Amino acid sequence: MDDDVPLLIPEVNPDHLELIKVQRQRRGWSGAIVTNPNCSTIALVMALAPIHQAFGAKRVVVATLQALSGAGYPGLPAIDMLGNVIPFIGGEEEKVESEPLKIMGSLVGDRIHFAECRISAHTNRVFVEDGHMVCVSVELEKKATPDEVARVLAGFSSLPQELKLPSAPERPVIVTDERDRPQPRFDRDAGNGMSAVVGRIRECPVFDIRFVVLSHNTIRGAAGAAILNAELMKAKGLLD
Amino acid sequence: MDDDVPLLIPEVNPDHLELIKVQRQRRGWSGAIVTNPNCSTIALVMALAPIHQAFGAKRVVVATLQALSGAGYPGLPAIDMLGNVIPFIGGEEEKVESEPLKIMGSLVGDRIHFAECRISAHTNRVFVEDGHMVCVSVELEKKATPDEVARVLAGFSSLPQELKLPSAPERPVIVTDERDRPQPRFDRDAGNGMSAVVGRIRECPVFDIRFVVLSHNTIRGAAGAAILNAELMKAKGLLD
Amino acid sequence: MDDDVPLLIPEVNPDHLELIKVQRQRRGWSGAIVTNPNCSTIALVMALAPIHQAFGAKRVVVATLQALSGAGYPGLPAIDMLGNVIPFIGGEEEKVESEPLKIMGSLVGDRIHFAECRISAHTNRVFVEDGHMVCVSVELEKKATPDEVARVLAGFSSLPQELKLPSAPERPVIVTDERDRPQPRFDRDAGNGMSAVVGRIRECPVFDIRFVVLSHNTIRGAAGAAILNAELMKAKGLLD
Amino acid sequence: MDDDVPLLIPEVNPDHLELIKVQRQRRGWSGAIVTNPNCSTIALVMALAPIHQAFGAKRVVVATLQALSGAGYPGLPAIDMLGNVIPFIGGEEEKVESEPLKIMGSLVGDRIHFAECRISAHTNRVFVEDGHMVCVSVELEKKATPDEVARVLAGFSSLPQELKLPSAPERPVIVTDERDRPQPRFDRDAGNGMSAVVGRIRECPVFDIRFVVLSHNTIRGAAGAAILNAELMKAKGLLD
Repeated sequence: MDDDVPLLIPEVNPDHLELIKVQRQRRGWSGAIVTNPNCSTIALVMALAPIHQAFGAKRVVVATLQALSGAGYPGLPAIDMLGNVIPFIGGEEEKVESEPLKIMGSLVGDRIHFAECRISAHTNRVFVEDGHMVCVSVELEKKATPDEVARVLAGFSSLPQELKLPSAPERPVIVTDERDRPQPRFDRDAGNGMSAVVGRIRECPVFDIRFVVLSHNTIRGAAGAAILNAELMKAKGLLD
Repeated sequence: MDDDVPLLIPEVNPDHLELIKVQRQRRGWSGAIVTNPNCSTIALVMALAPIHQAFGAKRVVVATLQALSGAGYPGLPAIDMLGNVIPFIGGEEEKVESEPLKIMGSLVGDRIHFAECRISAHTNRVFVEDGHMVCVSVELEKKATPDEVARVLAGFSSLPQELKLPSAPERPVIVTDERDRPQPRFDRDAGNGMSAVVGRIRECPVFDIRFVVLSHNTIRGAAGAAILNAELMKAKGLLD
Repeated sequence: MDDDVPLLIPEVNPDHLELIKVQRQRRGWSGAIVTNPNCSTIALVMALAPIHQAFGAKRVVVATLQALSGAGYPGLPAIDMLGNVIPFIGGEEEKVESEPLKIMGSLVGDRIHFAECRISAHTNRVFVEDGHMVCVSVELEKKATPDEVARVLAGFSSLPQELKLPSAPERPVIVTDERDRPQPRFDRDAGNGMSAVVGRIRECPVFDIRFVVLSHNTIRGAAGAAILNAELMKAKGLLD
Repeated sequence: MDDDVPLLIPEVNPDHLELIKVQRQRRGWSGAIVTNPNCSTIALVMALAPIHQAFGAKRVVVATLQALSGAGYPGLPAIDMLGNVIPFIGGEEEKVESEPLKIMGSLVGDRIHFAECRISAHTNRVFVEDGHMVCVSVELEKKATPDEVARVLAGFSSLPQELKLPSAPERPVIVTDERDRPQPRFDRDAGNGMSAVVGRIRECPVFDIRFVVLSHNTIRGAAGAAILNAELMKAKGLLD
């Protein structure tokens, strides 16, 4: 979360890579530090950022259902997860509440203005191998119907798609209208694990809109993210 | 949800049993219809009602992680639930969003004034045998700290406790401060399955307060609820 | 497996406690060492010993499906057991193949003559909380029908039952004729977890008889076994 | 199991396709019926047949741990399989005990002489998505060491490999010497799901040799088997 280090999701804030120039100048080196967001931040932001860009997200309440692989190996004991869920993941809620504000922030001069949005997260561990699912309720600045939100998400495309980066999925966000999807087992591999799948887009009785988003935590959320970051940096001449 | 039929949680709205008089008069019978709320409504309201009574709940966003047994038998196929969660339960969200308003409503004359509160629910099925868990974020009318909320919940006691009804748990709500509890496997049997367990009471960056509540869906949420209802009706002379 | 240390299952070899005299004399102490067999040995021997006493068991091939709790805590990682079984448990097969021969052996003078029986074991770890299940095929010396075997097992009773030891189950072996039982979830608590449940007793195309036996590995297989051992020793005046 | 219908595993009994001539003549048709063995039969025979060819299998005791998908959809309820195993699969043991004898039989004239081998099977359902695992103990006619058996299995190759049939795996049987493999989650996809994986080849205290074999029940055990059968029939000119 350092000022001059981009927290990068190539489809969302590719312009933040400009910070590398600031970083190089300030730290006097020729390398570059770019960090991956937390894997549940990525799932959330893949869907939230296009909505934020189009309609403005003011307040967001999320609850995650996160896969075992997110805890690394060996992670949780089988005996604790048999027929159980755990409503706590150390340090996770803080990240899900803060990282998106930086990622969705605007680069102004040599610093990022954080998005003005408040996020509240409940994070839960469930007995799933891979795939973080997030239930999201959003208050919008500019009202929008579920259909309008679905269109924005389905149509979302960005620099990695334009540049046809090898690991970039054709569609960063896939919208499903099956009423009981996305599900980790069946949807995590969409776009070779690099697409987020959004479903159940509907009105929210408390805020404006709500939906469920799923993303593969070890591909889009980790290894694939690092590769896509590198591909983008290379394409922008930052690895020379 | 009929006007003259109480939707009863004995600790929360025992006074709604007065509706039986209205019901008998209007329908010209000597029996009585009393209904059980949905099992995830019960989990939510066991914790929400005391908070609502003390501080007023204006807006509530919840996400549930519900057990397999809630779907009856045979319920979901094993092959669909292996390493999976399902972000949809037919008809469930509507109930969780509407039933609490009636249960937490006030009996005025011969009708219930619904609580003025808005609820948004995401309901999910998880690979758990018994025990519905609900992540809850609440906007309060009257500000309160997590400690104040914890005290109200831990101290909550009502008519079934006063009357020492046989199935009434000593404490309807048990508050835990272990950071990763309640968990279905380990907490669902609290109070012989009749107590709700609330944990992770903490401030909410979007609303005021948030927490996790767990309740045994086939005991407090079904069979035990029906028995406790009957015990209360008997004690009030309504089964004579 | 020391010569002068009884490996005790109170219903099977209570007479082996005589070894304590040998042990005290030989080692010059007044205490006593008595050991618990391995938890899957116990499951097997609870059913095999009465059969061996009645009909003689010459050759036995078993495959176990063992619960997670048998591995202690934390045991196996959840990520390894999700939708998986592991066909290996370190050191387990050796114990299941050797311990029963001592337990079912005869005390002759001051030493145990091991039972003349050969056992082959495949041990597997499965995603079950508690309850070790064993598939058993037995070659008998004296032919017997499934019905005869069932009668011997259902009628099995021994010293702990005679002495009415507090932890002794009324029936050490419960025979079920439901075609898909015993199952760990539903049968492990039989006799407060101290009874073994045997089902599917049927002819074996290779040997003579085969069946499935289930026993609660942390009760009959560990804590309960130790208590029952102590109760028996106390009743026999060995703890004075 | 009709006399003139081959029960085909292309690597094991491709010569049984000769029965189609008998079948056509006897039934007066130009089509052909070829059947797939049961999916757990296939897992067993992929390993047993090469051993039988090399050393003669006289008596075989097996216990299976079979995946959920073998029961079709919807199959077993999640609530029954949570932390549970079921020691019964309707009709399965009969198939595992009889089909291999036909498959490993010899075509003599216009009929198959069944292999002279006796098999005893315990079949169990476990909480695994795909992949049937079988624990096998074998009495051999001609003694062989585990190493000799491993060499026979690893070197096994047959007509589909010679003909380079598109769906034929390069190696029908893959031998692993990791002590805790094969495991369904990690080994079922070997050879695109068309190879059987054999591990834990070791001496048997009761018979001669024992091992564990795993095969993908919906690929090698069903769809892939049908395709490979058709490829072989086409190559042999039987589909013209």
